[in-house]
Amino acid sequence: MQRSFVTRRKVEFSHTDMAGISHFTNYFRYMEEAEHEFLRSIGLNVVMQDAKGTYGFPKLSAECRYRRPAVYGAELTIHMHVHADDGKTISYRCQLLEQDELVAEGQIQVACCRFPANQLPFAIPLTDEVLAKLGDGKEPVGA
Amino acid sequence: MQRSFVTRRKVEFSHTDMAGISHFTNYFRYMEEAEHEFLRSIGLNVVMQDAKGTYGFPKLSAECRYRRPAVYGAELTIHMHVHADDGKTISYRCQLLEQDELVAEGQIQVACCRFPANQLPFAIPLTDEVLAKLGDGKEPVGA
Amino acid sequence: MQRSFVTRRKVEFSHTDMAGISHFTNYFRYMEEAEHEFLRSIGLNVVMQDAKGTYGFPKLSAECRYRRPAVYGAELTIHMHVHADDGKTISYRCQLLEQDELVAEGQIQVACCRFPANQLPFAIPLTDEVLAKLGDGKEPVGA
Amino acid sequence: MQRSFVTRRKVEFSHTDMAGISHFTNYFRYMEEAEHEFLRSIGLNVVMQDAKGTYGFPKLSAECRYRRPAVYGAELTIHMHVHADDGKTISYRCQLLEQDELVAEGQIQVACCRFPANQLPFAIPLTDEVLAKLGDGKEPVGA
Repeated sequence: MQRSFVTRRKVEFSHTDMAGISHFTNYFRYMEEAEHEFLRSIGLNVVMQDAKGTYGFPKLSAECRYRRPAVYGAELTIHMHVHADDGKTISYRCQLLEQDELVAEGQIQVACCRFPANQLPFAIPLTDEVLAKLGDGKEPVGA
Repeated sequence: MQRSFVTRRKVEFSHTDMAGISHFTNYFRYMEEAEHEFLRSIGLNVVMQDAKGTYGFPKLSAECRYRRPAVYGAELTIHMHVHADDGKTISYRCQLLEQDELVAEGQIQVACCRFPANQLPFAIPLTDEVLAKLGDGKEPVGA
Repeated sequence: MQRSFVTRRKVEFSHTDMAGISHFTNYFRYMEEAEHEFLRSIGLNVVMQDAKGTYGFPKLSAECRYRRPAVYGAELTIHMHVHADDGKTISYRCQLLEQDELVAEGQIQVACCRFPANQLPFAIPLTDEVLAKLGDGKEPVGA
Repeated sequence: MQRSFVTRRKVEFSHTDMAGISHFTNYFRYMEEAEHEFLRSIGLNVVMQDAKGTYGFPKLSAECRYRRPAVYGAELTIHMHVHADDGKTISYRCQLLEQDELVAEGQIQVACCRFPANQLPFAIPLTDEVLAKLGDGKEPVGA
């Protein structure tokens, strides 16, 4: 299963640091916001309900390599490739570009976890609903 | 050159998300705050001045693997190993523990860059002052 | 001088806290982002240049009253009224609504300050360029 | 009922913005972290449990007036006065100082609310446990 998604984010003033550029932690927010926008675009959500209760997609790992700084007002395009090949995790590989220049590239990987009331989350396989909706798309989606 | 450093951070309410755990981006803040505390502990700073102007340490890359969630009030101990073997970059490998349990492990890698007025930063080798202060410590420092 | 502006913001996952709602500090980000979007809409910016150097608009005060919680995914409409009656400060009064319900209302007030290199900012009167561009609009702008 | 509390916060690099100073939203974090540290100091918490379920202290309002900018590394002392005179809300008036200079002053006011599962919070009077622990202190606490 592989799908693509494209979205955009602007570097806001509150994202900048005293070096005048978007603080490195914001790229993880941009990637997560792209992940969530993708989930909504295929009818999923960050918190899902089924007969067994609530589940969601906590992060297993996150990484980013910084290529060029982005300053206040920069319009970033996020190109994302989504993989769920092992039935248990979803990976989102992202390239963040300003115009045609690569600003950063990274990846977040999520598990599928139940969130029982008053307990810590525990991992489950990707549910049938998630697999079905991830698998629906033969073509790139998004804008 | 290898040095060690240990510090602590508490999971604040504003760090939590609707899943009830510290949002994954905060671990990068914890690691960066440990980096900066280490720099101050050896007489360096995030922004340095020399005869040629201003320089600092923007991130080249950042990564984190999440092992266990951390909830509001968790007291995290950050064990950090600092490397600067190539003369151009500094790596900070971190393990974040709650009591004896591994919560997350990750790494940030920084370059040494000049910040000219009204221009984007550009990379330089680690300066003599940085190398000298990094190399001073034969023993682990910090608390 | 009074102008109006309308924009929108979505409550992102990273904005939520363990109570499941947008953390109270985010409303100040929403208001600031509306302020900056307004400035861009009339040809101004958060950092301005003139013959005397760099100036900008640091906050004098900020306040918010919270009426209803906003959860992940909420689409907020921000209605903003802009005042600059005293020639020295600009006030942005904001109402944040979800559909027709008032979620929060607040205000940020900014001064006009020079940012000399290597010194702290100091206040100046609103420049002619700022006054002219603020005064151009007889009608509400934005979307 | 009036109590006092003193704590400290450092301006971290990630708090700064491109103007080189702590972004105005961080002062609300500093005040909230002082609030939570105070609650813990008297045996309360941000999330409380009693026979009727879970309750906590969402914000009713927040305000801050900015007197002087604070730069990276500034050590802020937060002097807080706590009031709960009406039996329903708690107010935290704060002065943030760097050495003897006033950097900012503000206030956050919280309600006491139940958080029913899968519903929005609703207000209740301050519980007996909260009133008792708030009322215990005749003398300033904290450090």
